[in-house]
Amino acid sequence: MLEMENLSAVMKKKGELVLENTPIPLPGTEEVQIRVSAVGICGSDNHYLEHGGIGPFRVTSPVILGHEPAGVVCALGEGVTSLQVGDRVAIEPGVPCRMCSYCKEGRYNLCPDIVFCANKPTRGFMRRFSCHNADFCHKLPDHVSLEEGAILEPLSVAIHACRRAEICLGSRVLIMGAGAIGLLSMLTAKAMGATRLIVTDVVQDRLDFAKKLGAHHALRVDTRDAEEMARRVEAALGCKPEISIECSGAEPSIQTGTYATRSGGVLVLVGNGSTPTVNLPLVNAAVREVDIRCCFRYVNCYPLALEMVALGKVDAKPLITHHFPLEKTLDAFETSRTGAGGAIKVMIHCDQ
Amino acid sequence: MLEMENLSAVMKKKGELVLENTPIPLPGTEEVQIRVSAVGICGSDNHYLEHGGIGPFRVTSPVILGHEPAGVVCALGEGVTSLQVGDRVAIEPGVPCRMCSYCKEGRYNLCPDIVFCANKPTRGFMRRFSCHNADFCHKLPDHVSLEEGAILEPLSVAIHACRRAEICLGSRVLIMGAGAIGLLSMLTAKAMGATRLIVTDVVQDRLDFAKKLGAHHALRVDTRDAEEMARRVEAALGCKPEISIECSGAEPSIQTGTYATRSGGVLVLVGNGSTPTVNLPLVNAAVREVDIRCCFRYVNCYPLALEMVALGKVDAKPLITHHFPLEKTLDAFETSRTGAGGAIKVMIHCDQ
Amino acid sequence: MLEMENLSAVMKKKGELVLENTPIPLPGTEEVQIRVSAVGICGSDNHYLEHGGIGPFRVTSPVILGHEPAGVVCALGEGVTSLQVGDRVAIEPGVPCRMCSYCKEGRYNLCPDIVFCANKPTRGFMRRFSCHNADFCHKLPDHVSLEEGAILEPLSVAIHACRRAEICLGSRVLIMGAGAIGLLSMLTAKAMGATRLIVTDVVQDRLDFAKKLGAHHALRVDTRDAEEMARRVEAALGCKPEISIECSGAEPSIQTGTYATRSGGVLVLVGNGSTPTVNLPLVNAAVREVDIRCCFRYVNCYPLALEMVALGKVDAKPLITHHFPLEKTLDAFETSRTGAGGAIKVMIHCDQ
Amino acid sequence: MLEMENLSAVMKKKGELVLENTPIPLPGTEEVQIRVSAVGICGSDNHYLEHGGIGPFRVTSPVILGHEPAGVVCALGEGVTSLQVGDRVAIEPGVPCRMCSYCKEGRYNLCPDIVFCANKPTRGFMRRFSCHNADFCHKLPDHVSLEEGAILEPLSVAIHACRRAEICLGSRVLIMGAGAIGLLSMLTAKAMGATRLIVTDVVQDRLDFAKKLGAHHALRVDTRDAEEMARRVEAALGCKPEISIECSGAEPSIQTGTYATRSGGVLVLVGNGSTPTVNLPLVNAAVREVDIRCCFRYVNCYPLALEMVALGKVDAKPLITHHFPLEKTLDAFETSRTGAGGAIKVMIHCDQ
Repeated sequence: MLEMENLSAVMKKKGELVLENTPIPLPGTEEVQIRVSAVGICGSDNHYLEHGGIGPFRVTSPVILGHEPAGVVCALGEGVTSLQVGDRVAIEPGVPCRMCSYCKEGRYNLCPDIVFCANKPTRGFMRRFSCHNADFCHKLPDHVSLEEGAILEPLSVAIHACRRAEICLGSRVLIMGAGAIGLLSMLTAKAMGATRLIVTDVVQDRLDFAKKLGAHHALRVDTRDAEEMARRVEAALGCKPEISIECSGAEPSIQTGTYATRSGGVLVLVGNGSTPTVNLPLVNAAVREVDIRCCFRYVNCYPLALEMVALGKVDAKPLITHHFPLEKTLDAFETSRTGAGGAIKVMIHCDQ
Repeated sequence: MLEMENLSAVMKKKGELVLENTPIPLPGTEEVQIRVSAVGICGSDNHYLEHGGIGPFRVTSPVILGHEPAGVVCALGEGVTSLQVGDRVAIEPGVPCRMCSYCKEGRYNLCPDIVFCANKPTRGFMRRFSCHNADFCHKLPDHVSLEEGAILEPLSVAIHACRRAEICLGSRVLIMGAGAIGLLSMLTAKAMGATRLIVTDVVQDRLDFAKKLGAHHALRVDTRDAEEMARRVEAALGCKPEISIECSGAEPSIQTGTYATRSGGVLVLVGNGSTPTVNLPLVNAAVREVDIRCCFRYVNCYPLALEMVALGKVDAKPLITHHFPLEKTLDAFETSRTGAGGAIKVMIHCDQ
Repeated sequence: MLEMENLSAVMKKKGELVLENTPIPLPGTEEVQIRVSAVGICGSDNHYLEHGGIGPFRVTSPVILGHEPAGVVCALGEGVTSLQVGDRVAIEPGVPCRMCSYCKEGRYNLCPDIVFCANKPTRGFMRRFSCHNADFCHKLPDHVSLEEGAILEPLSVAIHACRRAEICLGSRVLIMGAGAIGLLSMLTAKAMGATRLIVTDVVQDRLDFAKKLGAHHALRVDTRDAEEMARRVEAALGCKPEISIECSGAEPSIQTGTYATRSGGVLVLVGNGSTPTVNLPLVNAAVREVDIRCCFRYVNCYPLALEMVALGKVDAKPLITHHFPLEKTLDAFETSRTGAGGAIKVMIHCDQ
Repeated sequence: MLEMENLSAVMKKKGELVLENTPIPLPGTEEVQIRVSAVGICGSDNHYLEHGGIGPFRVTSPVILGHEPAGVVCALGEGVTSLQVGDRVAIEPGVPCRMCSYCKEGRYNLCPDIVFCANKPTRGFMRRFSCHNADFCHKLPDHVSLEEGAILEPLSVAIHACRRAEICLGSRVLIMGAGAIGLLSMLTAKAMGATRLIVTDVVQDRLDFAKKLGAHHALRVDTRDAEEMARRVEAALGCKPEISIECSGAEPSIQTGTYATRSGGVLVLVGNGSTPTVNLPLVNAAVREVDIRCCFRYVNCYPLALEMVALGKVDAKPLITHHFPLEKTLDAFETSRTGAGGAIKVMIHCDQ
């Protein structure tokens, strides 16, 4: 009976997403069972569905999507003492092995055995019930909504990017791409003390939104001439930014970031492009010691993301633009994919 | 009369290098006059001569070449107390402004007003007499030869690269390119505690030389397939290196470095390619957080380079393979350019 | 005639401060002559006067006091291009040698030859006219007052302390001592993203002021039992702070900071005590890896201090509580020393 | 029957160490059962026995001593795939919780729930058989002896200290205390590229031994005047050391380290003194920005320690001066405590 009630969004193969019931999992040792509430759609979810994978990760068997979840604890597995039934939690989706050198050295995002939704087909959260390790469930204070809990995932991506960028008090920062990650990076950079924020995108609406959220400058990208765009960034800002955070994955944008960044500065790559290789102006970067740092998900960012939201240091709510019940998951994906109606973050609600 | 005796190697324009007398400069405040002894030829000197410049630096008027010098102090300018006439010194060629934020923050190699040989035509050292700021002349102990003093320049490049790579005790390091910089980087990495060193090059002789100098593995590059080369590196080493130092500037080599480096590791670029842009496998780097760091010359490396040589921690002498008097500068350049006779570092002797 | 008009506050010896005319200095190369406007009184000025020195610095001949200055450029020395007559500037008082390893490595505050007011008797700024190196004069935008320019000096101390503490987004910070440095450290910590600020002091009025400026918690020190104070800090904050910044110099306060700081955290010492040695609970620090970092003045902090004030990220104006003309310097010192009338920062106005 | 054969060294209470049989533990999930071979005696073992505890750790019930072990895997618990029966392993004694923020951030030595011998009475290794988590058992290559495996523990302490000290190529290092930790720190510092090593101790024999192992200078401590000792260090070395590593725990030695360290340098405290508080010359440290860093055990050091020993970069064998069978544990402790016969590291052999 209960089994019938675990409606799940299952990607069968490239291009095919269906809603069907899956077994309700029982919590193992140190795990909790969760009644999923809000799950955000990530750009990578759409990429997965459209292309059958992303980067080195390929879908070879049906997979339940959804890795930006929040929900309510409904059962405790053996040994769990940190949570109670009824606790509202944001769920950090990747659980590492805890034993390899990456885990022991504090870079568990690089753990080769990390269990992420993409690695373990039944771990996705776009369904009614799922299970997760208790210590990767972060309890929400009463005044933080489950939707905000769900958005801690992309906010953690932004925090990881801003940490790798070593943004600090007084930093001047270029954000390329005004989607959810770009905007959250901008808000995080500001909270870290960045004093000048300039955002670029190809879509004017997104730039307008970025300005409303606090960007000091917003530049529309209307050329593939990266040196020209870099000049415009410098002209608008009055100087080159020490830090550039690339969230679009577009080759010309990555090139712009290289040219635009101040000598001795850092270009952080968050967006993964559709092409595996990118033509980079390395001589320009070399003679100016512009470092290029890559980001893969996040590590130890959820607690800070939660604190930022709980204290109002980052207000992520305006980014949640659209809502769909689990039953309308396909419409949700379509809205997220097209950005129709100014969609930034589309939220799926899994509770009935 | 004295004026007639300052024979100098002057690059008139692209492809034209002549020997002619130039005025003997007098030392200004805080400067010393130096009777130049040994000057090494750098790959960039040849590149300059052949292409009329390097990267953003173009030769627009005659320039005296030579930026790897050592010599003997023959006169003191006003205010100099740290040196005496007769002191043998290695000369750090770039003198920064000391006033900009880069200088004050300890990254004077990025000072936009640094006076380097390339920026100031009369600052080159391939001549009998030149002047230089006293605090950038590093006094040699008696047992360190002037030739060794000259090689502190490329050794400083190597030290800067290894520092930026954060090589430490136990590091496994891939060195790409077994020229002077590659070999010196290898020796420096070893002195820093690196426990496994693997070197690649297209020339077997250079690899043999690298093995003789202490490389644990040496791989000949006989394919442009970067992923294949990366696999061979991993097979030879038994694991991926945490750090890769690219000293060749060749595109396939930079690509190999990206693929070959361990997740969470660092690829340092020392070699500047002949092409301004390079096609990089960024998605591969991104999902594994391989950072790419660029190097421009060196900063605060001469004192350490000198100490390494003085204490015998780095034995650079075997790299000095050829010697020419100043009068035979053109032959020296030709030998350096072709690598004839296994030339690694070609030294010009400027004293009569 | 002009000579008669350079009224100066000269400390003749321990306990003796007089107002007398001194020669108006002429600007040397790369220097500017400044008509001094506002100069803050620092706790160390009073300490100097009262004890005839501070730490290793002893007054052996008459010295002009004042190292928190701002003024207007009234003449340019040779070679100055970065400033113009009439420019309003904040003056960073210490000028390093620019040649030693500390200067070249970006830690010029440790330069053994730095010329600070205490080292060179005629360099103090409590007078009508003085000279200073142009690149250590920071031009103020029109909307930043000269008084705010003067307060950049203690603000730089605070920034240096907060940087050494590695305060970042989400830090919980304990500030011990609610004088000017403590309060500015608190404001700086907040601008760097610290989310919880707890301040301690022996004076309730100062704590009230700290709360008004944004402290989340303020604890009065009414015991010398450091473990007890540490417990109260933890109870008030709900956890131990990752970072403690000690600005009082009092031994029990330094002890409290050791006990109070979270395992793996940092205790930064800004305040220099009146006793040269302090009894520290090192075993407690050791088993919890609490690091102790010392601060000496500041390095590369003025530009950021200025930007913070110019952008309104740090509002230092409320700290400037009292004003005196140069002629009333002795009254100013007395007010500063006693803290009468809630004095935090007492400002001397040197222009007639 | 088997139960009778697990002879164990049990500290009953302060001053009382007895040999008695204890149950042979069976390996749990992810654990292995180990036939213990060599176990080193640590200074802290003697301190424990003599004082009934160390620092905050007090013995309240019988505890099996021994935390420097190596042995042979004799049974596998569920889920173990990384080891096989018969594998020779060095055992990293502390096993953290893997779930707290310290564990996830790569500082598991600070995990409040770490299970160390001192925390869990039955976890000590001075007995025939014990169990341990497989991922904290480091497999030894054939050519590394079990005794060398045992010494990886104090070598890990030394590596942690040298890492926290940020020793690098060219460092000049003062080591205070020439016991096992001091000597291993010296060998590690050398392997990291330190070029000048000066060692102090009160015992001339130990200094002679240090010289034999590679110390460039060895100074006997014959005064409690810390400033005088600091002057002698500077005189012997020709400069102040950038880094001082204090391994004695003696108050005058910690004071000497503070005075002796170069401005901007680091004093690392490894030795925990017998007194909980130490009188420190903080003003001297403050005006010179000498940082004081504490060390607690080690984190992620065993793999490097093993590689150093396996590659011969650190030869720890000469430090193993004495051997006793498990049955003679009391004699072993006595020899370790008195340092009789030049004892540095005393090894107990637990296999029959």
